[in-house]
Amino acid sequence: MISPGTTLRAIRERKPLVHQITNYVVMNETANATLALGALPVMAHAGEEVEEMAGLASALVLNIGTLSEHWVEAMLLAGGAATARGIPVVLDPVGAGATAYRTAAARRILDLVPVTVVRGNPGEVATLVGASAEVRGVESMGAGMEAAELARAAARRLGVVASVTGPVDHVSDGERVLAVANGHELLAAVTGTGCMSSALTGCFLAGKPAEPLEAAAEALAAFGVAAEDAAAGADGPGTFHARLYDALYRLDPDTLGGRANIEEL
Amino acid sequence: MISPGTTLRAIRERKPLVHQITNYVVMNETANATLALGALPVMAHAGEEVEEMAGLASALVLNIGTLSEHWVEAMLLAGGAATARGIPVVLDPVGAGATAYRTAAARRILDLVPVTVVRGNPGEVATLVGASAEVRGVESMGAGMEAAELARAAARRLGVVASVTGPVDHVSDGERVLAVANGHELLAAVTGTGCMSSALTGCFLAGKPAEPLEAAAEALAAFGVAAEDAAAGADGPGTFHARLYDALYRLDPDTLGGRANIEEL
Amino acid sequence: MISPGTTLRAIRERKPLVHQITNYVVMNETANATLALGALPVMAHAGEEVEEMAGLASALVLNIGTLSEHWVEAMLLAGGAATARGIPVVLDPVGAGATAYRTAAARRILDLVPVTVVRGNPGEVATLVGASAEVRGVESMGAGMEAAELARAAARRLGVVASVTGPVDHVSDGERVLAVANGHELLAAVTGTGCMSSALTGCFLAGKPAEPLEAAAEALAAFGVAAEDAAAGADGPGTFHARLYDALYRLDPDTLGGRANIEEL
Repeated sequence: MISPGTTLRAIRERKPLVHQITNYVVMNETANATLALGALPVMAHAGEEVEEMAGLASALVLNIGTLSEHWVEAMLLAGGAATARGIPVVLDPVGAGATAYRTAAARRILDLVPVTVVRGNPGEVATLVGASAEVRGVESMGAGMEAAELARAAARRLGVVASVTGPVDHVSDGERVLAVANGHELLAAVTGTGCMSSALTGCFLAGKPAEPLEAAAEALAAFGVAAEDAAAGADGPGTFHARLYDALYRLDPDTLGGRANIEEL
Repeated sequence: MISPGTTLRAIRERKPLVHQITNYVVMNETANATLALGALPVMAHAGEEVEEMAGLASALVLNIGTLSEHWVEAMLLAGGAATARGIPVVLDPVGAGATAYRTAAARRILDLVPVTVVRGNPGEVATLVGASAEVRGVESMGAGMEAAELARAAARRLGVVASVTGPVDHVSDGERVLAVANGHELLAAVTGTGCMSSALTGCFLAGKPAEPLEAAAEALAAFGVAAEDAAAGADGPGTFHARLYDALYRLDPDTLGGRANIEEL
Repeated sequence: MISPGTTLRAIRERKPLVHQITNYVVMNETANATLALGALPVMAHAGEEVEEMAGLASALVLNIGTLSEHWVEAMLLAGGAATARGIPVVLDPVGAGATAYRTAAARRILDLVPVTVVRGNPGEVATLVGASAEVRGVESMGAGMEAAELARAAARRLGVVASVTGPVDHVSDGERVLAVANGHELLAAVTGTGCMSSALTGCFLAGKPAEPLEAAAEALAAFGVAAEDAAAGADGPGTFHARLYDALYRLDPDTLGGRANIEEL
């Protein structure tokens, strides 16, 4: 059942630990978004400790934004530990399609780790389903149905919940498709907001592990509502960015459900 | 003698270079806190240059927040150079106790480097004195005496000044215990504020190297006073975070002593 | 021809991809500055992908702020790919002169990559031309002619456009020298503002590749004008930092030329 306020309340009560192996550019940002929402972030990437750390966590977020070989290996180790414990895993395939190395790394993680949710933009997700050429236009077209079909196809092909973000987000488990129409254009003017949405997806999965489709959509709605609040009164991307953490911190579980614009297509 | 305003004035006059080998999540934050206070940060971690860089610095801050083997080795090299020159060394044992690797790394640094101040939360410090199980409750209990005893025990066991932060901070050299009651609850909603307090401890040690107990307590008081200023007018953790640098920059040496709430227990 | 507004307009229309191999401290900051201006940043440092990524970019920015061997090798690989495609390359020799390793790394990059613009402070640039002892005083003296001569000498010696920043910036191609007198003193209280100016130099080179001298000066003027706007209403370095991205985002191509204080000496 879609109820972002209930999930947010659960997150704030349980304060789940969300283990993030992410890129250098956004580590501070995803940690702060996690903390502002009410969960606890932990960043650890050494092969010596990732399995133990994932063993303490309620969700694992893998992000390939600034990749190198040691980091991929750490992601696979952590993914194995997460799987053994049955905690949800989010993969953010940053830049898949841009270089062969990134595409291969994302595919390798998908092959070896039972990922729960893939959260990416249309181009990244299309790359992973092998449909890059045709589908990349989606982003500029902003056509709802195409993105919805992409999400559904990716979910089926990859055996995950596919969370495809854009002006309207589309989240699918291969059967159902949820469209999320919250957010603000300033999100595109701040680096790492996609990565933040992946981190928050990890938080919502930790708060509602049995319903990953709903949790993934709720996370995007919550982030979008916070962005709407942050944009009111911001003078540009810098003050918007600071206010985004304020807005996540102040998200009200009682009103979040009414403000979340989630529709089943 | 406790006189944070005098030390702050010395820092701003001498602008000491504070070499920090710290974690990826907070590098920007600790550099900016150092700079806002009035000292000069430098981040360098390559084995090829850490000894030379530590040789230019007035204090060295080691932080194990996102550990890997090369980094530990660099910390040991830099620690050796700092020791040879007699400059103070701060260790922030981030996450000690969470994984065996972190606990071992923190212990290895303590074994091989004559650390001046260990700055951590109660759980981390308790881990290092081998008292994790009993003492971890301190944080939630908020009981002054227990934290004071932990600080004193850690100082004796580890041969350092122990700086144990929480709602009230406790700093001890094994004999005396100073309690610092400045700060604001929003500090806990921003990642890296503990790391910032370690960086500022390095700055204050550089400003008052002969009295590490007092310098460590003054650093926490100055940071706490800045947090109080930053919280006034903040709408949440994002604007608080931005305002925290403003407040450090605007700390007034003339009034800092009167606002610092440092008490000898 | 000097026309920063025209170049800014071109950047916003073409949205060039600017590949940055930079330091851990400022990655988020330089990415956000690039994005706020209107270009697209991408950070990638793995040997496996840097050549392919540089092959997608319109400019490459190399920054040695937190150096290690793998990173230098990646910079050389990316530099080779950039050269093969004829895209401009910016080198920011952070800390050259502070340690032998950094000086050697900067020299190695200059030897092996046909760098278009070197952007640094007087001490760093002086180190690279082998004139460290005499010229370092420039910064404190603030004497225009000395910095102008340094820029001209560095441009000739290194075969680059030399962009020497300070209270007044001096940019030279070895013959002409442009002085840029925009900016604000709060820039010195925020870490990574030099690195941001290098990233924006990459953006302006991508917008005006045929005139690197002018593009480099225009970048500094645009950044300086944004700093002036950001300082108005800032309470210190933290709010200034947030407002700096707002100001870059709101730079007006129609008024930028009139506000840019660029003078040919």
